[in-house]
Amino acid sequence: MYAITIPEAGGPEALVWAEVADPEPAAGEVLVEVVASAVNRADLLQRQGFYDPPPGSSPYPGLECSGRISALGPGVSGWAVGDEVCALVTGGGYAQKVVVPVGQLLPVPKGVDLVSAAALPEVVCTVWSNVFMVGHLRPGETLLVHGGSSGIGTMAIQLAKAVGAKVAVTAGSAEKLEACRKLGADILVNYREQDFTELVRADVILDIMGAKYLERNVDALAVNGRLVIIGLQGGVKGELNLATMLVKRVAVVATSLRGRPLGEKAAIVAAVREHVWPLLEAGTVRPVVDRTIPITDAAEAHRVVEASAHIGKVVLTI
Amino acid sequence: MYAITIPEAGGPEALVWAEVADPEPAAGEVLVEVVASAVNRADLLQRQGFYDPPPGSSPYPGLECSGRISALGPGVSGWAVGDEVCALVTGGGYAQKVVVPVGQLLPVPKGVDLVSAAALPEVVCTVWSNVFMVGHLRPGETLLVHGGSSGIGTMAIQLAKAVGAKVAVTAGSAEKLEACRKLGADILVNYREQDFTELVRADVILDIMGAKYLERNVDALAVNGRLVIIGLQGGVKGELNLATMLVKRVAVVATSLRGRPLGEKAAIVAAVREHVWPLLEAGTVRPVVDRTIPITDAAEAHRVVEASAHIGKVVLTI
Repeated sequence: MYAITIPEAGGPEALVWAEVADPEPAAGEVLVEVVASAVNRADLLQRQGFYDPPPGSSPYPGLECSGRISALGPGVSGWAVGDEVCALVTGGGYAQKVVVPVGQLLPVPKGVDLVSAAALPEVVCTVWSNVFMVGHLRPGETLLVHGGSSGIGTMAIQLAKAVGAKVAVTAGSAEKLEACRKLGADILVNYREQDFTELVRADVILDIMGAKYLERNVDALAVNGRLVIIGLQGGVKGELNLATMLVKRVAVVATSLRGRPLGEKAAIVAAVREHVWPLLEAGTVRPVVDRTIPITDAAEAHRVVEASAHIGKVVLTI
Repeated sequence: MYAITIPEAGGPEALVWAEVADPEPAAGEVLVEVVASAVNRADLLQRQGFYDPPPGSSPYPGLECSGRISALGPGVSGWAVGDEVCALVTGGGYAQKVVVPVGQLLPVPKGVDLVSAAALPEVVCTVWSNVFMVGHLRPGETLLVHGGSSGIGTMAIQLAKAVGAKVAVTAGSAEKLEACRKLGADILVNYREQDFTELVRADVILDIMGAKYLERNVDALAVNGRLVIIGLQGGVKGELNLATMLVKRVAVVATSLRGRPLGEKAAIVAAVREHVWPLLEAGTVRPVVDRTIPITDAAEAHRVVEASAHIGKVVLTI
């Protein structure tokens, strides 16, 4: 098969479409003939050599895909060759074939086309696990999402609104904020011009900035608030005022999806299928696809995401 | 009635036993004739002028007491004059009488004498709410308790062992560590001689040091670990390495009991009555009383706690 390889870490041109060995499904896995994948920021870090795949996972980038099951490993039941699926993978989504543990498979939701379904697994699992399973966002509470127009942001807005929460977002342009508003965001903050700590008191914050926003995020939390950090785009080491935290009784959690063990991923995928799939099939929530680019132009897709020139997800077709 | 008053913030001698107006129970409150109270570190801070009572609470120190109900406010049911009780109070425990919201009353557990019962409410509610309701300690997991021989420490060891967890403690002397061992602690760390990060990987840490231990506490957490900070004896501002946190997927929570609204306190007291009272009545868990001092010598009691010369609780008899 062909896959995007990274012979040498570097810029977008480091991504090389090359022939590699076919993967084979082990016990509890299926082989998926990939139709589409999508770009995540972790892919950019992996390309630059800053984020090696966890041991045992595919060396190729790509954390999600959609496609059709082409073979079943030993002991797999409940799935059949030909099933249209999308999946969370620990790597290897940028390829013609990828193996997927059955716990990370999802059916393509009714009403969503097979290509767009590739935009779902990472954002839906990330948002559901962090905002709801870790952050315990409840109806009537306020969620603050940094980077509201990103793939994760656009899904977080929709899911939080679907459960009856109020949503505040930050983004860097009027155009991006308008896209957030159309998806349901209630409070729009242009971070280039406004200070979110003056405009928002949030019960849950979904953060991708890390150190740069740490103190301000704690300031922006309401009593009993939860700050969930899933990205460190603004640095790693931050200062924390524990007295502020103690008086407000708040939690700071940092977490990631990729490194979790199979069992935890399967629990997240099962929760997503139970809680989010009905919303997708009812049309309440939809994948937001900025554009679709052929996998052979993966470099261009990375350039778009690196420049934050997109709203929602950038999808790669195989 | 008489109560300990603090005419001017200062050292232990600032505590003055003086005649003051009797409190009166409002709707949903009872009046308790106090038999005993107990010292908490928050009382020392209040005496020094660093920790004003929350608005609406008694100006006198004392966060817990035992005694007998002597009057019922309007609308109180389920309790009767003469009932022997212990209670969590937001202040005013160092007095002959104190009003208590019914949600913060507990019966004296069978097998525990009325004086020793004064040593229970704060430590039991603090440990149960933080280690179990916030930290979600589960059987088989490891709890690290800093200050293992303190009132909170001695209760945390017992409750964690009772639910089948492993317990590590830090303390500053061999005598204190031996007391912890007798209560069931599995891993003993003398913080004057040993580095707990080399000896412990904890699923939950109950911390009273704040900034001073922040980085080391995060280092000592296991994957999916939870650091629960309830004291800031080692300072307020600490540096946090978010990358370490993200890779291990850990949570840092800072919280306190005193400032919580009535409803949250009542929920904690109800949980304690359901989960901890049976353990006390079975003798599995017991109050650890270092010594009992008459309330008129409250200054001496504060000197003992300030010097950390105690193991367990210092109780004040009225």
